[in-house]
Amino acid sequence: MSLLVSSQSMFFAGPLPLSSGATISDYSLAYETYGTLDAHRSNAVLVCHALNASHHVAGVYADQEKSEGWWDNMIGPGKPVDTDRFFVIGINNLGSCFGSTGPMHANPATGRIYGADFPVVTVEDWVRAQAALLDALGIETLAAVMGGSLGGMQALSWTLQYPQRVRHAVVIASAPSLTAQNIAFNEVARRAIVTDPDFNGGNFYEHGVIPKRGLRIARMIGHITYQSDDLMNEKFGRALRNAVEGDVAGTDFLYSTQEVEFQIESYLRYNGDKFSEYFDANTYLLITRALDYFDPARAHGGDLRAALAPATARFLIVSFSTDWRFAPARSREIVKALLDNRRHVSYAEIDAPHGHDAFLLDDPRYMSLVRSYFERIAKEGATR
Amino acid sequence: MSLLVSSQSMFFAGPLPLSSGATISDYSLAYETYGTLDAHRSNAVLVCHALNASHHVAGVYADQEKSEGWWDNMIGPGKPVDTDRFFVIGINNLGSCFGSTGPMHANPATGRIYGADFPVVTVEDWVRAQAALLDALGIETLAAVMGGSLGGMQALSWTLQYPQRVRHAVVIASAPSLTAQNIAFNEVARRAIVTDPDFNGGNFYEHGVIPKRGLRIARMIGHITYQSDDLMNEKFGRALRNAVEGDVAGTDFLYSTQEVEFQIESYLRYNGDKFSEYFDANTYLLITRALDYFDPARAHGGDLRAALAPATARFLIVSFSTDWRFAPARSREIVKALLDNRRHVSYAEIDAPHGHDAFLLDDPRYMSLVRSYFERIAKEGATR
Repeated sequence: MSLLVSSQSMFFAGPLPLSSGATISDYSLAYETYGTLDAHRSNAVLVCHALNASHHVAGVYADQEKSEGWWDNMIGPGKPVDTDRFFVIGINNLGSCFGSTGPMHANPATGRIYGADFPVVTVEDWVRAQAALLDALGIETLAAVMGGSLGGMQALSWTLQYPQRVRHAVVIASAPSLTAQNIAFNEVARRAIVTDPDFNGGNFYEHGVIPKRGLRIARMIGHITYQSDDLMNEKFGRALRNAVEGDVAGTDFLYSTQEVEFQIESYLRYNGDKFSEYFDANTYLLITRALDYFDPARAHGGDLRAALAPATARFLIVSFSTDWRFAPARSREIVKALLDNRRHVSYAEIDAPHGHDAFLLDDPRYMSLVRSYFERIAKEGATR
Repeated sequence: MSLLVSSQSMFFAGPLPLSSGATISDYSLAYETYGTLDAHRSNAVLVCHALNASHHVAGVYADQEKSEGWWDNMIGPGKPVDTDRFFVIGINNLGSCFGSTGPMHANPATGRIYGADFPVVTVEDWVRAQAALLDALGIETLAAVMGGSLGGMQALSWTLQYPQRVRHAVVIASAPSLTAQNIAFNEVARRAIVTDPDFNGGNFYEHGVIPKRGLRIARMIGHITYQSDDLMNEKFGRALRNAVEGDVAGTDFLYSTQEVEFQIESYLRYNGDKFSEYFDANTYLLITRALDYFDPARAHGGDLRAALAPATARFLIVSFSTDWRFAPARSREIVKALLDNRRHVSYAEIDAPHGHDAFLLDDPRYMSLVRSYFERIAKEGATR
């Protein structure tokens, strides 16, 4: 049985200053909580989301089938992050399309839909907004902040912006910044969206259209980079769309450039179509840009050690061997910079075949590692 | 001084039967030759081209600046493939947009531009057409057939379709088939082109437009996969568009999702734009499909050893350590299958940082390896 949960929202009347120098005059944040905040307010765990996710981290919505949260395998009663012990908070980030203020909402200054005018937000901005929500919830200190991929960047940023408010940071399948190749993939996806005639300069809402062509391409590119080459070969290989299992040669080729010939094509098209039905194009631009901009070492002339010096949290860093989007070497950069600062770091490089997607999946070593780490955190809390 | 060369064309009046069961009723092949065919007609070397290339392999065109052939560093007088010794032939493949019969030509059966109706062609079809041109040139046996990437697939296919006509095959940065990930990248590029409204179902010529948006995306994806992550980091890293050398932090961010922020973005956009000016969209679909379909093991239940049994040529196989598009492991599959057939194979895995693009570049070990191999071929010819 999954936890029954519901989405909440909090309105913030004051302006939020952004890294860019712009401000958001007022805004709402969608969030969910699971478990109970203890009397000392010391068992809160903040979970930060990545590109295609939301504050709906765990549990299901009443009367809604297949509504499991995106990390429901990790978080819940008796799960690695045990909501019988921890008070877990999921927050939807600003600029997202899943409930918090974003490009499809009205700009209070003009009364018009933000669209492409929604200000560029950074990981640092998100963390600042998350901190405002925690303030409102009366939570001063987090037992842990955790996230995978872009979520891991937010967890890392928490330890730099609010070191005194974070006891542990769990940074999974993440990186201290994007590589040129990472930025390149983001840029191709953005160009596909922006050059889709239905994008209309970002004001497609007014035109009653959606730049689905661009969103499909963006999602297809994403899917390729989330998986390992090995896993794709195992799942799809060169099987034809109508292949019978065990029949290597399969049926004949269609000899077509536009019809689906291989299963991998059908998989990509299906996922591209699905994504284009629900994801906002402006949000896609904003979130990939937040990824591009994240680079705490930049203000320190590229010196990650200096950048991470303010962090006082204890860290669990996890990477996956076949993740070529955020390769283990990138996690090791974080580990090294923390060790150079004499910080407490546990690091695990998990030999999993699933590529970047592994952080969302049920690898038993990964799950039991996170479970052990959170059991340790729970014990610390008990002895306070 | 580069060789002065000129493009030639040969018309074939007979129909060419294709792998798909269709035929091309008549066709022209554009080609170039360099050097002199010897009296025994035994010094011919056929060079097969990859996706974005043509029969213009070496030399320059008179009165045309920057017109060096795409492998001019490899082929020419005194170069690794020495045109003072060898008679080198470059052929433009059917379906291409650089001179041979392709989608922008009229279908003699209907009098209308082929467009998307140009029949799907395979590596095997190309090799059959190349053989017809060699017949017409009076060349029965090739001293060598060579190519990189998709060109290497053609070289390999030559040894299977016409084993008695090939003494040596030089297969560089190639693979015995595409992986699921390779097909996936091709499919995203094709979808970007096909879903561009200007594609008009492939008949964009009639509408006086070009699906440039799609071509740009296709080319950007291509560029990412041609280069290694390391090389991209070295060339571009996270440098901003206006970065001053040595200034890591650079100037301020623009905080824009659509403007160029990082140099890598400017590089990709520039190359996408350039490509969209000259490359035919239907050709892109055809050539990527030929890549997808190539899989000699398929007719043998996936057994590459059985598939390569007909090959009697001697092989030089070359791969590059950082090529993640056609990784060294794929070349080793070819090497193993040939060795299992007790064939003569030389194999070199070159530790080069340039990714897939390395096969076109001037790595000195690579160049001297090919030079040595062709000197050996030349000596064989001399002792006949």
